[in-house]
Amino acid sequence: MPPSPIRKLVPFADVAKKKGIKVYHLNIGQPDIETPVSAMDAVRHNQLKVLEYCHSAGNESYRRRLVDYYKKVGIEISPDQIIVTTGGSEAIIFGFLCCLNPGDEVIIPEPFYANYNGFAVMTGVNVVPITSHIDNGFALPPIHDFEKVITPRTRAIAVCNPNNPTGYLYSRAEMEALKAICLKNDLYLFSDEAYREFSYDGEFVSAMQLTEMDDHVIMMDTISKRYSACGARIGALISKNKGIMDTALKFAQARLSPPGLGQILAEAAIDLPDDFFDRPKAEYQARRDLLVKRLNSMDGVFCPNPGGAFYAMARLPIDDSDRFCQWLLESFSHQDQTLMLAPASGFYRSSGSGKDEVRLAYVLNQEDLSSAMDCLEEALKVYPGRKV
Amino acid sequence: MPPSPIRKLVPFADVAKKKGIKVYHLNIGQPDIETPVSAMDAVRHNQLKVLEYCHSAGNESYRRRLVDYYKKVGIEISPDQIIVTTGGSEAIIFGFLCCLNPGDEVIIPEPFYANYNGFAVMTGVNVVPITSHIDNGFALPPIHDFEKVITPRTRAIAVCNPNNPTGYLYSRAEMEALKAICLKNDLYLFSDEAYREFSYDGEFVSAMQLTEMDDHVIMMDTISKRYSACGARIGALISKNKGIMDTALKFAQARLSPPGLGQILAEAAIDLPDDFFDRPKAEYQARRDLLVKRLNSMDGVFCPNPGGAFYAMARLPIDDSDRFCQWLLESFSHQDQTLMLAPASGFYRSSGSGKDEVRLAYVLNQEDLSSAMDCLEEALKVYPGRKV
Repeated sequence: MPPSPIRKLVPFADVAKKKGIKVYHLNIGQPDIETPVSAMDAVRHNQLKVLEYCHSAGNESYRRRLVDYYKKVGIEISPDQIIVTTGGSEAIIFGFLCCLNPGDEVIIPEPFYANYNGFAVMTGVNVVPITSHIDNGFALPPIHDFEKVITPRTRAIAVCNPNNPTGYLYSRAEMEALKAICLKNDLYLFSDEAYREFSYDGEFVSAMQLTEMDDHVIMMDTISKRYSACGARIGALISKNKGIMDTALKFAQARLSPPGLGQILAEAAIDLPDDFFDRPKAEYQARRDLLVKRLNSMDGVFCPNPGGAFYAMARLPIDDSDRFCQWLLESFSHQDQTLMLAPASGFYRSSGSGKDEVRLAYVLNQEDLSSAMDCLEEALKVYPGRKV
Repeated sequence: MPPSPIRKLVPFADVAKKKGIKVYHLNIGQPDIETPVSAMDAVRHNQLKVLEYCHSAGNESYRRRLVDYYKKVGIEISPDQIIVTTGGSEAIIFGFLCCLNPGDEVIIPEPFYANYNGFAVMTGVNVVPITSHIDNGFALPPIHDFEKVITPRTRAIAVCNPNNPTGYLYSRAEMEALKAICLKNDLYLFSDEAYREFSYDGEFVSAMQLTEMDDHVIMMDTISKRYSACGARIGALISKNKGIMDTALKFAQARLSPPGLGQILAEAAIDLPDDFFDRPKAEYQARRDLLVKRLNSMDGVFCPNPGGAFYAMARLPIDDSDRFCQWLLESFSHQDQTLMLAPASGFYRSSGSGKDEVRLAYVLNQEDLSSAMDCLEEALKVYPGRKV
């Protein structure tokens, strides 16, 4: 099991904080946006006498309401095509378990969400990376890159859209290209759509909207980001493939039930007004604009403009981002402040890739984000491993 | 993935209910005891603005309080020897993942908690059963039965104490015998102690209390049963083996965080008065006494007296418990009532075992339990597959 690139520097951050240094956390996708009060109030006002196991697929009332939510975002499904999971994490694990045998392969464009590695270890699945590049903003690699790595053991392609860690928003043409290769090679398409509400430039296309793909698409979702409720641990596995859903239900039954209290919150959140997402989306977009502008104004830094989610990847003029990110916490401060970033190496499977890249999560308000950029700008001036 | 023996007859129960028949659920360990009001109130009064991810190992405040709880029940550990999990289920999955490679073997006395099969499929582990028998109340099989099945791939022995599904409470001598065989063969001892508070006859001995076993014992725990809070999905993986806990933390980090709201409940529950368990324990014991007495008074029925948990296994004068349990729901009623039981076959790995046995969960009040026993008594008189 590789350590988490998002969390492995936490001990160094703790030491910095003990020295009295303020650390801006741009390393982890923990939004600062408030969890909707009405949703939390539903938890506060619950009248349960016994906090029982719920249905292994999730409360039926919640699944029915989820159908309404998905309809609003252009996804037509029924309650039996949903299994409520313990966060998006469990949805990914169930997807791997249902569609791949140990030793089977899933192709994932890298850089990718690092925990896919952990889920692959858990389920005995082999992740086969194909590399996307910062120079074209991490667009989907060309189809022949996929075809080159397909073997008799390839069972699936996994994408995260909008992407974590790159923020890239896949275009309709790219989604259609994925459809074509999946149909041609009889592959599942795993689509992790945790950030759909946060698509800024262009149209978000769900894999569930692809025609002729009902048996191929497995969508993984979560309420963590859209309602700023990461601690609720409520996600969903969604597919129109009945065989897959029957198998997934058996895995769901083995672990008995998703969290009951989180489901109360999740169900209440569906009653939020339609314009609820306008404010957080506008806020994230403003932060993105600030972040990308500041980064690209720094000497030697390049940050492509991410179309969605709340992450950006930047190339820095440094020798090694692992070393740089640790140095920021151990040896640097600017006006008693520093920042914590996620080194990009952990998001690449190919060794040696991403050594001069970092991921930034823009989950701080604009004032803090601006101060964090001040720190980064100063840091790059004095970092001993700076490359010209 | 085999279907759950506890849940597979649910569709037949639904049909019976639609016909207006009252179904007594003795099939599932969902307690009817109320979740402690003070613990639920802690959730109701939470003042969180953002429901954030918590520490992957669980909130530090909760782990510190858990140390106090375990001290009270005679188990000495520190907060870093605890990883808070999503129910006991995830603790078992993490235990398997950390201690066994795919293809490795874990020996489990059967009948055993059926979901161990599912967790084994998820993690690629092979379960090797050794059979315990209803005639001696499902005591630990003799040590030479374990030794006969040990191979170079055997890594662990797993027990549930007090046992689900048998209710058997392992004696100190049996725990010492397990220790001896684990030390001799360098095996891990997985100990699922979800029901420790409900030990009626004799002393509960935790695997964590065995000396010289710090590197060998992995305890799995949950608050589901002790606080009647199954839906909170809060469990724990506990071990003094630092290497195992380091690995477990990586798996915990991959899935980010256990449920936040459930941890609020769990932490508050530790403040319950020391005599809190007296009432539920007395209630379960009274139900057990009623159940066992009624069962053994029925012609041809044998039910050993279970020493703990809230399950009993009974041998019935029937051809096939799967058929009988389905018949109870499909074709039988007594005063417009029937009962749902768990056929024992699903708790045995050895095929053909347990065909005339059922598991009964005494999670109903004594009046309902008595009515359920009336139904069973009448059913056994008229069941077409009755054996003399």
